[in-house]
Amino acid sequence: MTETAAFAGGGLAEGVHRCHFRVYYEDTDAGGVVYYANYLKFAERGRTEYLRALGIDQSRLADERGLMFVVRRSAVDFRAPARLDDLLEVETRVTEAKGASLEIAQVVAVAERPADWLARIESRIACIDRAGRPARLPAEIKAKFVERGAAATAPAPQN
Amino acid sequence: MTETAAFAGGGLAEGVHRCHFRVYYEDTDAGGVVYYANYLKFAERGRTEYLRALGIDQSRLADERGLMFVVRRSAVDFRAPARLDDLLEVETRVTEAKGASLEIAQVVAVAERPADWLARIESRIACIDRAGRPARLPAEIKAKFVERGAAATAPAPQN
Amino acid sequence: MTETAAFAGGGLAEGVHRCHFRVYYEDTDAGGVVYYANYLKFAERGRTEYLRALGIDQSRLADERGLMFVVRRSAVDFRAPARLDDLLEVETRVTEAKGASLEIAQVVAVAERPADWLARIESRIACIDRAGRPARLPAEIKAKFVERGAAATAPAPQN
Amino acid sequence: MTETAAFAGGGLAEGVHRCHFRVYYEDTDAGGVVYYANYLKFAERGRTEYLRALGIDQSRLADERGLMFVVRRSAVDFRAPARLDDLLEVETRVTEAKGASLEIAQVVAVAERPADWLARIESRIACIDRAGRPARLPAEIKAKFVERGAAATAPAPQN
Repeated sequence: MTETAAFAGGGLAEGVHRCHFRVYYEDTDAGGVVYYANYLKFAERGRTEYLRALGIDQSRLADERGLMFVVRRSAVDFRAPARLDDLLEVETRVTEAKGASLEIAQVVAVAERPADWLARIESRIACIDRAGRPARLPAEIKAKFVERGAAATAPAPQN
Repeated sequence: MTETAAFAGGGLAEGVHRCHFRVYYEDTDAGGVVYYANYLKFAERGRTEYLRALGIDQSRLADERGLMFVVRRSAVDFRAPARLDDLLEVETRVTEAKGASLEIAQVVAVAERPADWLARIESRIACIDRAGRPARLPAEIKAKFVERGAAATAPAPQN
Repeated sequence: MTETAAFAGGGLAEGVHRCHFRVYYEDTDAGGVVYYANYLKFAERGRTEYLRALGIDQSRLADERGLMFVVRRSAVDFRAPARLDDLLEVETRVTEAKGASLEIAQVVAVAERPADWLARIESRIACIDRAGRPARLPAEIKAKFVERGAAATAPAPQN
Repeated sequence: MTETAAFAGGGLAEGVHRCHFRVYYEDTDAGGVVYYANYLKFAERGRTEYLRALGIDQSRLADERGLMFVVRRSAVDFRAPARLDDLLEVETRVTEAKGASLEIAQVVAVAERPADWLARIESRIACIDRAGRPARLPAEIKAKFVERGAAATAPAPQN
């Protein structure tokens, strides 16, 4: 299974999505490196491109079915800093697809040295309805992640 | 005429509103100084606090009368950089109240040396309706700025 | 023990530091609420004001002793969103002072309803030297946190 | 003359550099559109990619010759808002190369409709030395812009 995304060298293979982002001045701080909160921005860009690569349209999901993804928890380990002009690779995989949430693991590295990770981010993403209540993940979305290696840890939802 | 705003040492006197903001890491870049786009953030905070100090509630204006303020133009002159931990003073004055827009002049300086300005920002703020069309400034809002020294360059609106 | 910080209503009592920040447009996103990464900005502002309230000058620490604080890990639980114009209270406490790092627990809430927390952030902050290696926390800094209730989980450093 | 840049579909033709950036949640605000200050971020990314496409390495320029580019003035006209998920095209041209500064004109548009511009940015970029004083633009850099259509409005510097 090999799929490709159009933007910025992104791609999806073996259940791992990769995309690339340049570090600009806006991302750095007076310490000379990328500001710590901005790794969550890169992580969110990576998750968004992954969904796009899978053909999951968040705007349509919201308009037609009233469903939204929200972040419930993010934990970031900072190992080494990214610097101005670095081209970063964000690697995203969905590790677990539950009834109403996803567990997502991400790694940020300099694109030339993907093994030397700079930051790791683990996030729990919940699916909610218009009233903000937990909502079942649509079965076809859950299936896309399970096909790509996510553990399914709750009975498949009946939508 | 001397009025005071509650937040962060803000205040309004002689038609000039002043408020203060600390520079944190998030505001700086790898050049060791405040990132250039962030002066527009400080400017927007200053305008918001000015409106708040005058009792103009933007959310209510939007809900009850369908009116919003949008920035049509901003020009920033950068003279000297602000640095980490600086306490900045943002000075805001409305120089002109037209039929459907405001001209606003702002100065950012280190609070201890307000005469040595770091950046000047001139903005045109338009009043628009729900459809995004230009809308007359409510007369009582226009009057608040004219009382505080703004030139009135169009006939007072009849609301 | 009650101490007060000068800025924005901050203060330190019983080992808990509190300070306040207004939510501006810059902090929000198209979901209508504060963007998730920005809670780490509020957290960093809170930690910075806490150090300032204790008289710990990070710039001098860097210049004179070559020591810096860096974030090694941050975990954020998002419970409910903050909105435009909210006045947020950031509560910071150092829960543990180890040999070369601090464990810090923070809560973000709307200032009027501090019990209904919106986000909780737990961070590990390491002390490093100019070469980026772990460095012992200066004894007088460690002592300040232990006096305010942090558990001391390693022998006091000999500086 | 047609050159191409590697990143994100950027390219340089007829003295106009174009590159593309996706709008993510981080770029938007509670008004549902891109936050006004963030157009200066897109502009700075565009200028950086243009320099990169011309082989001008800002880090090396700083290290080897002590020269830096700083923004002295930016004026932004906001015509229509960009929205979440838009793919933006940033068009950059150097209109004038003076002795110690550049005049740069930029346009931000949705990539599919480049004629319907959303924002225009005009900036003056100064070349400064390590002490922060105005410094002559290196002749070979000035020449690159003049070759691509910039007006040369001062005698060529002797470096």
